[in-house]
Amino acid sequence: MDLATIIGIIAGFGLVILTIITGEGSIFFFSIPSIMIVFGGTLGAILINYPFKDLFSVIKVISKVFLSTPISYKETIEQLVSLADKARREGILAIERELENIDDDFLKSGVQYAVDGTEPEYIRAIMESELINLQERHKLGQNIFLALGTYAPALGMIGTLIGLIQMLSGLDDPSKIGAGMATALVTTLYGALAANLFFLPVAGKLTKRSTEETLQKELILEGILSIQSGDNPRFIREKLLTFLSPTFRSTVLQEV
Amino acid sequence: MDLATIIGIIAGFGLVILTIITGEGSIFFFSIPSIMIVFGGTLGAILINYPFKDLFSVIKVISKVFLSTPISYKETIEQLVSLADKARREGILAIERELENIDDDFLKSGVQYAVDGTEPEYIRAIMESELINLQERHKLGQNIFLALGTYAPALGMIGTLIGLIQMLSGLDDPSKIGAGMATALVTTLYGALAANLFFLPVAGKLTKRSTEETLQKELILEGILSIQSGDNPRFIREKLLTFLSPTFRSTVLQEV
Amino acid sequence: MDLATIIGIIAGFGLVILTIITGEGSIFFFSIPSIMIVFGGTLGAILINYPFKDLFSVIKVISKVFLSTPISYKETIEQLVSLADKARREGILAIERELENIDDDFLKSGVQYAVDGTEPEYIRAIMESELINLQERHKLGQNIFLALGTYAPALGMIGTLIGLIQMLSGLDDPSKIGAGMATALVTTLYGALAANLFFLPVAGKLTKRSTEETLQKELILEGILSIQSGDNPRFIREKLLTFLSPTFRSTVLQEV
Amino acid sequence: MDLATIIGIIAGFGLVILTIITGEGSIFFFSIPSIMIVFGGTLGAILINYPFKDLFSVIKVISKVFLSTPISYKETIEQLVSLADKARREGILAIERELENIDDDFLKSGVQYAVDGTEPEYIRAIMESELINLQERHKLGQNIFLALGTYAPALGMIGTLIGLIQMLSGLDDPSKIGAGMATALVTTLYGALAANLFFLPVAGKLTKRSTEETLQKELILEGILSIQSGDNPRFIREKLLTFLSPTFRSTVLQEV
Amino acid sequence: MDLATIIGIIAGFGLVILTIITGEGSIFFFSIPSIMIVFGGTLGAILINYPFKDLFSVIKVISKVFLSTPISYKETIEQLVSLADKARREGILAIERELENIDDDFLKSGVQYAVDGTEPEYIRAIMESELINLQERHKLGQNIFLALGTYAPALGMIGTLIGLIQMLSGLDDPSKIGAGMATALVTTLYGALAANLFFLPVAGKLTKRSTEETLQKELILEGILSIQSGDNPRFIREKLLTFLSPTFRSTVLQEV
Repeated sequence: MDLATIIGIIAGFGLVILTIITGEGSIFFFSIPSIMIVFGGTLGAILINYPFKDLFSVIKVISKVFLSTPISYKETIEQLVSLADKARREGILAIERELENIDDDFLKSGVQYAVDGTEPEYIRAIMESELINLQERHKLGQNIFLALGTYAPALGMIGTLIGLIQMLSGLDDPSKIGAGMATALVTTLYGALAANLFFLPVAGKLTKRSTEETLQKELILEGILSIQSGDNPRFIREKLLTFLSPTFRSTVLQEV
Repeated sequence: MDLATIIGIIAGFGLVILTIITGEGSIFFFSIPSIMIVFGGTLGAILINYPFKDLFSVIKVISKVFLSTPISYKETIEQLVSLADKARREGILAIERELENIDDDFLKSGVQYAVDGTEPEYIRAIMESELINLQERHKLGQNIFLALGTYAPALGMIGTLIGLIQMLSGLDDPSKIGAGMATALVTTLYGALAANLFFLPVAGKLTKRSTEETLQKELILEGILSIQSGDNPRFIREKLLTFLSPTFRSTVLQEV
Repeated sequence: MDLATIIGIIAGFGLVILTIITGEGSIFFFSIPSIMIVFGGTLGAILINYPFKDLFSVIKVISKVFLSTPISYKETIEQLVSLADKARREGILAIERELENIDDDFLKSGVQYAVDGTEPEYIRAIMESELINLQERHKLGQNIFLALGTYAPALGMIGTLIGLIQMLSGLDDPSKIGAGMATALVTTLYGALAANLFFLPVAGKLTKRSTEETLQKELILEGILSIQSGDNPRFIREKLLTFLSPTFRSTVLQEV
Repeated sequence: MDLATIIGIIAGFGLVILTIITGEGSIFFFSIPSIMIVFGGTLGAILINYPFKDLFSVIKVISKVFLSTPISYKETIEQLVSLADKARREGILAIERELENIDDDFLKSGVQYAVDGTEPEYIRAIMESELINLQERHKLGQNIFLALGTYAPALGMIGTLIGLIQMLSGLDDPSKIGAGMATALVTTLYGALAANLFFLPVAGKLTKRSTEETLQKELILEGILSIQSGDNPRFIREKLLTFLSPTFRSTVLQEV
Repeated sequence: MDLATIIGIIAGFGLVILTIITGEGSIFFFSIPSIMIVFGGTLGAILINYPFKDLFSVIKVISKVFLSTPISYKETIEQLVSLADKARREGILAIERELENIDDDFLKSGVQYAVDGTEPEYIRAIMESELINLQERHKLGQNIFLALGTYAPALGMIGTLIGLIQMLSGLDDPSKIGAGMATALVTTLYGALAANLFFLPVAGKLTKRSTEETLQKELILEGILSIQSGDNPRFIREKLLTFLSPTFRSTVLQEV
């Protein structure tokens, strides 16, 4: 679970909901037609904008970003070092038994290649390919969330226009003006909330996450190649640390 | 038919129309003057902005994008492999008979060049030229749709201003204010709907489509050259698969 | 005359004026103070933003763009081929008599250089200089129109603010509110119309026109050098056609 | 004096003031609190955004741009040619007596270096350094004016919000609504006027001015080096003319 | 203390508060729910957008920027020259005693490396690493403040929408309309003030500060290496001055 995201969503929406509930007329804030216009309309726009398969592939990336824990470079490095240690002491084939303890698919396939005695050049080529693949999907996810964050407020405004026209067209009973406008404005509120407390910040988090995951995968790639060539575990740790940018390095060292 | 686009348009406009029909005053939402201002005005702006021939050439591209089915790289590769197979077994001239079964004009002309024994360098040059041609037209189409998506809301606002001024200038009968404002706002609604549920998402889809079609044409180009040089069909399939970026490759492999 | 621009302006403004005339209160849509604020103010802003001489040089470019007919690459190529033909049969000096039949100044000076026996390198250098000059003026014109398209709506809003404050400050007679607001809004309307149905689309057309004119001038430059070196007219036509990007080439070939 | 800027400011603000004076309620357009919010607030924002010394250094650049006359490349070239002439006839030391007739500091220091027999490489290095220095200050001035043009309307809106809240909070006497709203809107008007008739166009002029002044300084640098190496004055004029881009060259030639 | 920032904040907020206090209904300008929506919501959005550790690391950078005095290149250079002087006269080990008088951590660690006789190449590598580290943190801080400056007004608008809907839904008592709207608008005011008088200008100042601090650190790096190689103090001062861009150089020379 990515705690900051969860806390952010709870804090943001919690405060908004609290303000609504403790205030007057909270019943006005829930409107089925507004939900239909904003979310149905935004969905429609995004379906025109992106092919089906892009939308599906993004769902996977998103859920992974939300459900996975923050990346610990320290843990990744220690895992690689311990694999290197085992490989050195018991031979490269010994680490095949460790495969079932590895969660990360990227690391898993890397270890498998190393155990299979695949050529280092081929391992590097195929793993870098997968890394580019991952970055492309992150980039796509980010662009889709930016698009959602643009369409949602636009459809909120469209819904409010529809509500206003409906209200104005039946302006016989002035006592209904307030309720009519309240209903109309709810749609704009939905669009603004969806964009600013979900779509746009998530697009930002995906960028951050992509940078972090790319670095982690690069560590794994270098680690696998070092393990295969039988490097000293201590040397591998040092090498991987220099691989980190200074910011990350100091963080890792603090963790250690 | 590009299903996602159709579903998106139906979902988006369907929800909007449903909301309008089930609400009050649905008669107010249909306004000939508003249609004239938004669509006539946007047409006027785009005619000033782009030469006639650009606008005509785009109509062709658009219709092709909407009516053609999503591109299947797998199908393209299999078609090239089967042509290679036939060429290998029965000689390059044998595939001339297949020409009538080929829908794609790019592939058709490629096959014709190969059968005619045209120099490989010339085939590559002329087919890459056509590919650049196609990308330019896609780019032009995208820019025109972005321009439409900018002018439409602006003209919607212009129409609303005209409506407001007309209403305010005749403010003798206060009972007409509501109806007047409703009519005025309809024009803004038209502009916003046209931009956010059609022009802007279509501009986005054209970009996506351009990337996909370019990749497909590159596959065809490589395939034609391999067929002409008499390569082994199995080798051609593998070569074309490596040509795909990892994302596409895994998709193709799943399809296979 | 550039027909698309004329049709676009007539269509756009025609529809707006038609809507205004057939509606109520058309007298409210004509306001001298609004014209003064929007156009005088925009002129003021552009005078601060650009030196006098830039503004003057742009007027020439604009009028040329509006009054000249769309560029026909076919015609340009045929004219060059026919000059090459004459030069080949009757000698290079014979084409001097054709000078009076040539409208395009760029072509005229090129022919003069060729007849005078100027060094090819010098012809290329001086004509490329003039071409860059032309592109710079187009770019400047485009930037000035983009600036006009930004200042005009801003000054429209300023005029509306002034009108609103004037109306609100004398709010003794409520029956005047409508007329006051109508007058105030007219200024915003002027700014929006000027920007969206003139300044911004013209900025777009200038970009397009610049691309086309640059290509035409490049054809002329290559043609002049080929004529001077006594190339075969048929070879010149083929060479110039390859000079065109594929899109333009197919257009030219259709014209032929 | 830069005439276009002066005319632009007079035309823009003159028209606005004329409209205000000839209309109703002109007294409402002058508001001390609005001036304080817009200009004091914008000053506050810019003080947070830029260090003191940047703001001071910009004041100098601005005043120079406004008070100096438009740059005449012709005059600059003729001055250099006449210096070269004197240096050729009476020796390089003779031009030292001309120093008091030279207004331009850049030219003055250049002549001094030449008279002192400084190494050409060193003259070029030090004068190019000063040129970069000048460009940096122009760039800084431009960015500061763009920032002012962004903060001013934002603070205008803030002032209007404050005014509206004050008015709405004391809504007991409906007869005061008009006057209250008028006062509130004046602040938005101030911000919009300051941005669109001063800050943003001046930012644009600074860019233009920077390009022109850079070219002039480059002419001076080349001229000084040619004078020092004792080049023929006629040759210097020709060399400096080729240094100009075609647009400028034709302008200069027209001036000559 | 960075005086300009403090003055800017006091001037900006002071004027706003003064206007509010001296006007009517100042009690309306303080609203707990508005503070909760704007600041709580913005915090929520930023927590979704950035990981925890980025937000923490930025707090340090910010406080340092606000609390530290403006950078004096002159002082930095003089400090380095005096260290060089001591090292020359009493030997490199003598400057170890100066360590306790040095505030700047970067300079401190540099001096320690020099005293320890670390290889110059290694000193350069490790100090440049730290410099990149610093720039990355500044860049991150700047991006976070830009994000805050985007989310705050958006949440202000969301709060106003909520307030408007609450007011409109209970529109039985028209006498409460004014107070309700006043309360609603306060939230927009909070968002606009936070963005334009704090978040956005601070983002700008961080950029400026980053440029200055980077230059200072580069001076220190060059100085340390010169001290270690035993250069003449006078030569070091001259070398460091040429290292400054002309703008900075003239400032330093004025200071000297």
